[in-house]
Amino acid sequence: MTDLEQVVAEIRWNRDGLVPTIAQDVVSGKVLMLAWMNRESFTQTLTRGVAVYWSRSRGRLWEKGETSGQRQRVVDVRLDCDGDALLLRVEQTGVACHTGRRSCFYRQLRDGSWSDAEAVLIDPTRLYSG
Amino acid sequence: MTDLEQVVAEIRWNRDGLVPTIAQDVVSGKVLMLAWMNRESFTQTLTRGVAVYWSRSRGRLWEKGETSGQRQRVVDVRLDCDGDALLLRVEQTGVACHTGRRSCFYRQLRDGSWSDAEAVLIDPTRLYSG
Repeated sequence: MTDLEQVVAEIRWNRDGLVPTIAQDVVSGKVLMLAWMNRESFTQTLTRGVAVYWSRSRGRLWEKGETSGQRQRVVDVRLDCDGDALLLRVEQTGVACHTGRRSCFYRQLRDGSWSDAEAVLIDPTRLYSG
Repeated sequence: MTDLEQVVAEIRWNRDGLVPTIAQDVVSGKVLMLAWMNRESFTQTLTRGVAVYWSRSRGRLWEKGETSGQRQRVVDVRLDCDGDALLLRVEQTGVACHTGRRSCFYRQLRDGSWSDAEAVLIDPTRLYSG
């Protein structure tokens, strides 16, 4: 078994072959998003040094920023104690969220409802205008 | 529908009625752990102000720190853009990990293998003694 195969084998993939993966901004410490990886996306992430996820909605590999240009360079990869969650510390180009906000976690519970708590930094129509 | 019911209804619970939940230290910004919530644990978290998760391995509600005393006071609750992940910013008493480390994400990918990258701050036998 190669080192990479061993590293992959120590992750506890769920029944769909996926593992939840947190991306955190290595500079600010802000939690940017939670996405999912399968073995292939994890392997590509390691070999290429940029975050590649598995899109559950589209059923295919999803290189973060492939359309929008908002890439994540991976600085540090962590696995949790029971092996079923990953944490990437990344250098985020621009914004992580498809809405144009820095983080996907922009909805804050306040006074009994979810309120937008982060500014839109980039017009989302500009992120996906081919 | 009450405010709380509305807040719960806007979360996209998975087919098992769960949502992945990240706990982040509000002081240091460190990502402490990823756990899961169901509707009941989320409701208890809001009403009590401390993190209550759903333990998938034990199949029951799990008040963080109920045995170890290492509780999480919830300061801020966030929902992501597509509504299927939560972020809690918490004041962590002591350590988050059952191994006695501050964070559960202590296994760092380094030179082709997972290496322990965080010190044990509290002897785990002390966390679960009596």
